Amino acid sequence: MSRFFEAHRALLERAVDACRTRVYWSAFPEAASGKIYGETAKADGEAAFKAMLGKPFELDQPAESRVGHEVSPFGMALDITYPSASPDTLVAASQRAGKAWATASIEDRIGVCLETLHRLNRQSFLIAHTVMHTTGQAFMMAFQAGGPHAQDRGLEAVAYAYDEMTRIPRTAEWTKPQGKGEPLVLDKTWRIVPRGVALVIGCATFPTWNGYPGIFASLATGNSVIVKPHPGAILPLALSVQIARGVLKEAGFDPNVLMLAADDPAAPIAKDLATRPDIAIVDFTGGPAFGAWLRANAGTDLVFTEEAGINPIVIDSTDDFRGLCGNIAFSLSLYSGQMCTAPQNIFVPTGGIATNEGHKSFDDVAAGIATAIDKLLGDPDRATGILGAIQSDATQARVAAARKLGKIIRDSGPAPAAGYPQARTASPLVLAVDAADETAWGEERFGPISFIIKTASTADSIERAAHSAQRKGAITASLYATDDAVIDQGADAFARAGVALSVNLTGGVYVNQSAAFSDYHVSGANPAGNACLTDAAFVANRFRIATTRRQRAA
Amino acid sequence: MSRFFEAHRALLERAVDACRTRVYWSAFPEAASGKIYGETAKADGEAAFKAMLGKPFELDQPAESRVGHEVSPFGMALDITYPSASPDTLVAASQRAGKAWATASIEDRIGVCLETLHRLNRQSFLIAHTVMHTTGQAFMMAFQAGGPHAQDRGLEAVAYAYDEMTRIPRTAEWTKPQGKGEPLVLDKTWRIVPRGVALVIGCATFPTWNGYPGIFASLATGNSVIVKPHPGAILPLALSVQIARGVLKEAGFDPNVLMLAADDPAAPIAKDLATRPDIAIVDFTGGPAFGAWLRANAGTDLVFTEEAGINPIVIDSTDDFRGLCGNIAFSLSLYSGQMCTAPQNIFVPTGGIATNEGHKSFDDVAAGIATAIDKLLGDPDRATGILGAIQSDATQARVAAARKLGKIIRDSGPAPAAGYPQARTASPLVLAVDAADETAWGEERFGPISFIIKTASTADSIERAAHSAQRKGAITASLYATDDAVIDQGADAFARAGVALSVNLTGGVYVNQSAAFSDYHVSGANPAGNACLTDAAFVANRFRIATTRRQRAA
Repeated sequence: MSRFFEAHRALLERAVDACRTRVYWSAFPEAASGKIYGETAKADGEAAFKAMLGKPFELDQPAESRVGHEVSPFGMALDITYPSASPDTLVAASQRAGKAWATASIEDRIGVCLETLHRLNRQSFLIAHTVMHTTGQAFMMAFQAGGPHAQDRGLEAVAYAYDEMTRIPRTAEWTKPQGKGEPLVLDKTWRIVPRGVALVIGCATFPTWNGYPGIFASLATGNSVIVKPHPGAILPLALSVQIARGVLKEAGFDPNVLMLAADDPAAPIAKDLATRPDIAIVDFTGGPAFGAWLRANAGTDLVFTEEAGINPIVIDSTDDFRGLCGNIAFSLSLYSGQMCTAPQNIFVPTGGIATNEGHKSFDDVAAGIATAIDKLLGDPDRATGILGAIQSDATQARVAAARKLGKIIRDSGPAPAAGYPQARTASPLVLAVDAADETAWGEERFGPISFIIKTASTADSIERAAHSAQRKGAITASLYATDDAVIDQGADAFARAGVALSVNLTGGVYVNQSAAFSDYHVSGANPAGNACLTDAAFVANRFRIATTRRQRAA
Repeated sequence: MSRFFEAHRALLERAVDACRTRVYWSAFPEAASGKIYGETAKADGEAAFKAMLGKPFELDQPAESRVGHEVSPFGMALDITYPSASPDTLVAASQRAGKAWATASIEDRIGVCLETLHRLNRQSFLIAHTVMHTTGQAFMMAFQAGGPHAQDRGLEAVAYAYDEMTRIPRTAEWTKPQGKGEPLVLDKTWRIVPRGVALVIGCATFPTWNGYPGIFASLATGNSVIVKPHPGAILPLALSVQIARGVLKEAGFDPNVLMLAADDPAAPIAKDLATRPDIAIVDFTGGPAFGAWLRANAGTDLVFTEEAGINPIVIDSTDDFRGLCGNIAFSLSLYSGQMCTAPQNIFVPTGGIATNEGHKSFDDVAAGIATAIDKLLGDPDRATGILGAIQSDATQARVAAARKLGKIIRDSGPAPAAGYPQARTASPLVLAVDAADETAWGEERFGPISFIIKTASTADSIERAAHSAQRKGAITASLYATDDAVIDQGADAFARAGVALSVNLTGGVYVNQSAAFSDYHVSGANPAGNACLTDAAFVANRFRIATTRRQRAA
């Protein structure tokens, strides 16, 4: 059965190595190219997606009814239904399937995970369509973030799990000297014992990218997994579960090792599942209200969350003002600000900043960013490719309501998507506010809403940004400064606040981007989440170690 | 400042290696020998201990009053008082001291931990007296378990912390190719961010052995630590804190990085401390009632517990009946059964067992064990050296009350300790009960109380023992069987139940013993505790990782 492991062993070892060095590496090519994925892959993916629309999604797992009302943010109803079952049925089937999975070898389990990732990768074009039409991401982003980047994140979790499990010796001869007497000898063996049934609760914006790490970390360490997708983004995870179940079956396992728990917004089952004593691990990506509820009420202490943050940019000075404006414009526009890593608050001193183009006042900086956004989105096709669509009505409404929160520097407007006249769209809204107006900028305003905040000084900017991160959470921070002392000051403050800091991004890297195998996504050290993708702590507690020690026969 | 690190670096690297291979290794010699510890060490330790009696214990930390009413289980009041302060004062001082500790280098912190362990080791004779006269352990056990073995456990935690922290690269050049364009280049740096203030709640029976792992794991990973000892066993931890504070000062740190939080049983402060949002980590060894309370109510999710278990022995068959009886007799007698690893329940089939001395009935097995205990404890001096004294009145009372729970196979009696006429002592009580009488054997009866339980068969024995472990917790299990199929069956059942299994112990290794660097103490997979001494999960979450990534200037 370990043929899958052998087939992908070299890739796994490369991934383990990449996790240690954290230099650039990627297992799955991000270029949506026919040369890589096959000349017909693009057309095949689109055809396969279209064939799914308006039909029941086939998944051979226990089903009592069907659910599903997904509507693409680009306008059309998917009209796909999924099997649904009660938590009792799901957990019982998961436990039954989990027995053989728990005692399978590390190599067998890791092999199934690696082969699944390989097959997911081959379906990246299809996955791109499913992600695009549930999250509202533009196609290219849906391909990259929903496909290869998500697969990289999954592989990273598998690599960590493999590394942790194989650091534990399987056997040892323990020989304790006894002076002149015969030594004491024990033959010891150790085995990995999984926790039980793991629950992964998916989000609506990055169902695969945020879902795969928990799914693969729990599977690799021997737990059976139930995936509860967001009702608005079921399809990408249903497809992923379907592909994994095929691999499980081929490897001789009960496919219920991995199950989908689709539900209806009118009858949600996440709380029921999470509070069961039989659920041993919970992974959650979503809002802080439900995150806090889970941490307090789940039946297990092993709850891994990514909740939300308010990400700051601090502008002190730059030797590339044009690059600064362009880079920030892109970060604010990408997927219409619906990334957990997107900036919201841009802190600028009231006295303005020093730049390569001379002194720039607060208003100059604000205007520079606004103009850069206009320029970036000037071409409608390019705008659609960057902005995508707005995932939910609530986010759309939030943009409208935010207009009154400050002085409008750049207004949000529709961004018609070619071919999708019904798409829900909104370009970035940029507001100027005073630092004292914390009711405006001090709350998370998820979506294409940002604030340029007038502060007393850069020290004031850093202090406010770091304090907000400690209190409300932040995943990323960005700092522009030409003086190393200011950079060191920012690095210290944001490290203490548990925020990943990017410095002087003016080129083709954006603060929103978090690269698998190099960037630790979420620190776990502020309210933006209690877990990190991916470090040792993300996997080490998903299994335990059982010992047998046997006295050597004389 | 890293001179301490350099001085002990070779030892650390050896310890890291030992954690990986888990063959026999020990850093600190367990022989209480003048050749190792110095010819005057024994006399010096005794003199130093006597000099402490009847005096205030000096600890230069914030103090508002003094507490302390320790009475040796061997009879005499220690009459030592310790500084005490309110949780507000303690936490504030710990936070202040923690700032510089948090940003110290890994090497500086690890160096302080290693030098502390080295100095603790040199004081092993003194520590032995402090452990003996708080826990009731006989001197030799107090020396070994309270001294070198505890130091080994501390070093093990330091080694794991060092290994986890140094697996994270400090810097990387991240270069992402861009086809024919210039690659994207980021200089990345990572730093360790501790959680904050850690609380270690000590126990009365093994204050140093159970306390050091949490103390050193939290210190090594950059947290400041407050040690709340059991009111009955303050002195061993007060001495340990005093020694560590000396090292901290020499290394240029505020000694309040490690503080003692002694309290009075009439005004306990553990709950107040544990529920504060400023306490980021809790380590606890003690009863399951307070353990459950902490897991539910502590202000942090990071609670590491060793609670309690009911440890089983399953006897199926043996080719060394005499060795079996002698080995079990020792396990039941050692420190009067007051070890969290001591067996309580001995399952024997109603039809008896096959042995090298022919068939033995249930009664033969019971009588064999009882006789072996009598023989082992026949010599009063040896008896004292094995049994020690009973730590608390409650345990003494428990023995008396247990007599009515079954048929007395061997009665408990006093075991006068030479030189300590007031010692609180009790030799093992052994009762026979039917498997159906689960009200008797199904609860933890901490102390020298054990049950020989009549079961339908070995399969029944294993099932009952494993089920009890899953429901009520167990740290150790022991199995005697000559048939590999039975051993495999037991190994599978106890692994599923998360219990460390010892097989066919008839010689000089006892099920109670858990060796640092080889045996994982507590699995974390049943109610006996949620953490393990020591695995990666014990340390990996005590710190987080902060990133700074900086665009390479063109």
